[in-house]
Amino acid sequence: MDYKQSGVDIDAGNEVVRRIRSLARATFTPGVLSEIGSFGGLFRLGNAGGDDAVLVASADGVGTKLRVAFMTGVHTSIGVDLVNHCVNDILVQGAYPLFFLDYLATGRLNPDVAVQIVEGLAGACRANGCALLGGETAEMPGFYADGEYDVAGFIVGVVPRRQLIDGKCITPGDVLIGLPSSGLHTNGYSLARRIAFDGAGLSVDAVVPALGRSIGEALLVPHRSYLSVVGPLIGDHAGPALVKGMAHITGGGITDNLPRMLPSGTHAAIDRSAWQTPAIFQWLQQAGGVPDADMLRTFNMGIGLIIACAPDRERELIDGLARTGEPEAVRIGQIRVGGEGVVYE
Amino acid sequence: MDYKQSGVDIDAGNEVVRRIRSLARATFTPGVLSEIGSFGGLFRLGNAGGDDAVLVASADGVGTKLRVAFMTGVHTSIGVDLVNHCVNDILVQGAYPLFFLDYLATGRLNPDVAVQIVEGLAGACRANGCALLGGETAEMPGFYADGEYDVAGFIVGVVPRRQLIDGKCITPGDVLIGLPSSGLHTNGYSLARRIAFDGAGLSVDAVVPALGRSIGEALLVPHRSYLSVVGPLIGDHAGPALVKGMAHITGGGITDNLPRMLPSGTHAAIDRSAWQTPAIFQWLQQAGGVPDADMLRTFNMGIGLIIACAPDRERELIDGLARTGEPEAVRIGQIRVGGEGVVYE
Repeated sequence: MDYKQSGVDIDAGNEVVRRIRSLARATFTPGVLSEIGSFGGLFRLGNAGGDDAVLVASADGVGTKLRVAFMTGVHTSIGVDLVNHCVNDILVQGAYPLFFLDYLATGRLNPDVAVQIVEGLAGACRANGCALLGGETAEMPGFYADGEYDVAGFIVGVVPRRQLIDGKCITPGDVLIGLPSSGLHTNGYSLARRIAFDGAGLSVDAVVPALGRSIGEALLVPHRSYLSVVGPLIGDHAGPALVKGMAHITGGGITDNLPRMLPSGTHAAIDRSAWQTPAIFQWLQQAGGVPDADMLRTFNMGIGLIIACAPDRERELIDGLARTGEPEAVRIGQIRVGGEGVVYE
Repeated sequence: MDYKQSGVDIDAGNEVVRRIRSLARATFTPGVLSEIGSFGGLFRLGNAGGDDAVLVASADGVGTKLRVAFMTGVHTSIGVDLVNHCVNDILVQGAYPLFFLDYLATGRLNPDVAVQIVEGLAGACRANGCALLGGETAEMPGFYADGEYDVAGFIVGVVPRRQLIDGKCITPGDVLIGLPSSGLHTNGYSLARRIAFDGAGLSVDAVVPALGRSIGEALLVPHRSYLSVVGPLIGDHAGPALVKGMAHITGGGITDNLPRMLPSGTHAAIDRSAWQTPAIFQWLQQAGGVPDADMLRTFNMGIGLIIACAPDRERELIDGLARTGEPEAVRIGQIRVGGEGVVYE
């Protein structure tokens, strides 16, 4: 009995590694010292972050959005989802990404699928100026059903300590600016799939008139990165920060994520009429008969990132975002004194 | 339909997060700035690595050793395996660990199992002076069988660039010193399980006389960390480095891992009689009728780490290792001119 008979094909793995290497190499920024294949990925910090660099790190997965990829056979956008989710998670603390690593686990490695995933990862890494520094591809016979896999991402970014964004300077009266999401991003897919496929009985390529495309396409829209539009507004500044706090709206929705940036003794009042809930969320709510509170604690409802800023700088922030490429940022609420969490009005 | 009905229990997740937080907090080193629960984990680099810090990062899983944990119901050692595997992967490039993040994915979260895993992670992080800075716990209904999970780890360490160990100064004539493994570490489990459970038909608690314990216990022995014994020998040095190169013997065995540190135009000659193959590998080979070459490309065969050093410093290295706590390091081979890869003699 050898290893191949036991379900692990080392040579197929090596072939994937070769194809992955060239994709990863295209993402290498000047900080990268290593070749893929060394035990650890090497990244020279140089002057990044200045004298008092703070590393910001995050680990994430894509959740059951993966199953929509399995159903459609489209695997490239999964890599984009994963990278952009991670980029946003460190961006909200003021950090620029340095490098990213992935963990890809399958039952039996399908080289074409693995390469599709890494193409997505590498493309998104390039778009965010982030090196795909390494990763692990694990073949685990019997752990994943045929054609299925799981993928996790790890990101490290850097921010000078004085530019760290932690929400501590948020005060009652500050306004909350919402930035549109591109779709469900990477959260709420267990519920969304149950509504669309089990409840409504749709096939993945069934066109939903209200969405103007197939349910599969609507659910697979990649998680967007906010780095290019927010990054230019959080750099070096002399006076008080324009961006006082940020929340990335992921699992748990606005309800669970917005409080993560609030100082104690404050709460957020959100005006649900301030933005139009995108059609996909309206359709899911109607098709599933989902109560409002559950929608708001499960989906981003059209708002993927929330920024807190001083009320007298709202115009400056919204104009700034329009200049950097996001013309649809809108005031969606305000910080209020007392209590905790989020109140919807 | 709400999220809980769809298979995701946010409240159970929050309860696990609370229990995990206190475990993680106990690992926090002075560099940690963040609380668990912020979007990204914050780590202040300070003077770590000096003027020219190189970050060394690695991602890994535990592979199908997980299934032995499922069979025995013992989940603490999995976390130890994961951390120590990652620590060794960056140690071989000269790096000390700064922080670690985990990704834990299940079908339905079992809080007790999750806490066991994190206890192992946290304990191993503390033992390695590494902060458990954050992580992701994903509930993915339908992705993992009941009671099963997958876990990935991500580590970042630092090394001053001048102390980076990359094997480039290895030359023919250098000797190879092997350090004992504690068992299979985290590799070869698909084959080992097939031999022990499918082939030999053992139950997980069947005592194997040649091993003096149950097959489950023998297979679950945690991956050891080499940081405490090797770390003191790779720090600041005036003259040439004592440790010229290191290879962590993981998936692919000595055959595939040792070449990763070799300069081109050299190969490694390994003397198989230089060390005693531990009983677990002898038993697996015999029970499975596995050819030598497959054993050597699948299992570590009792050698978990290989160090290259100049021949006139062999005694200094072996004595140094004995002093730091590893009295059983032994010369197992030599670097030779020409060719590539590993030759067994």
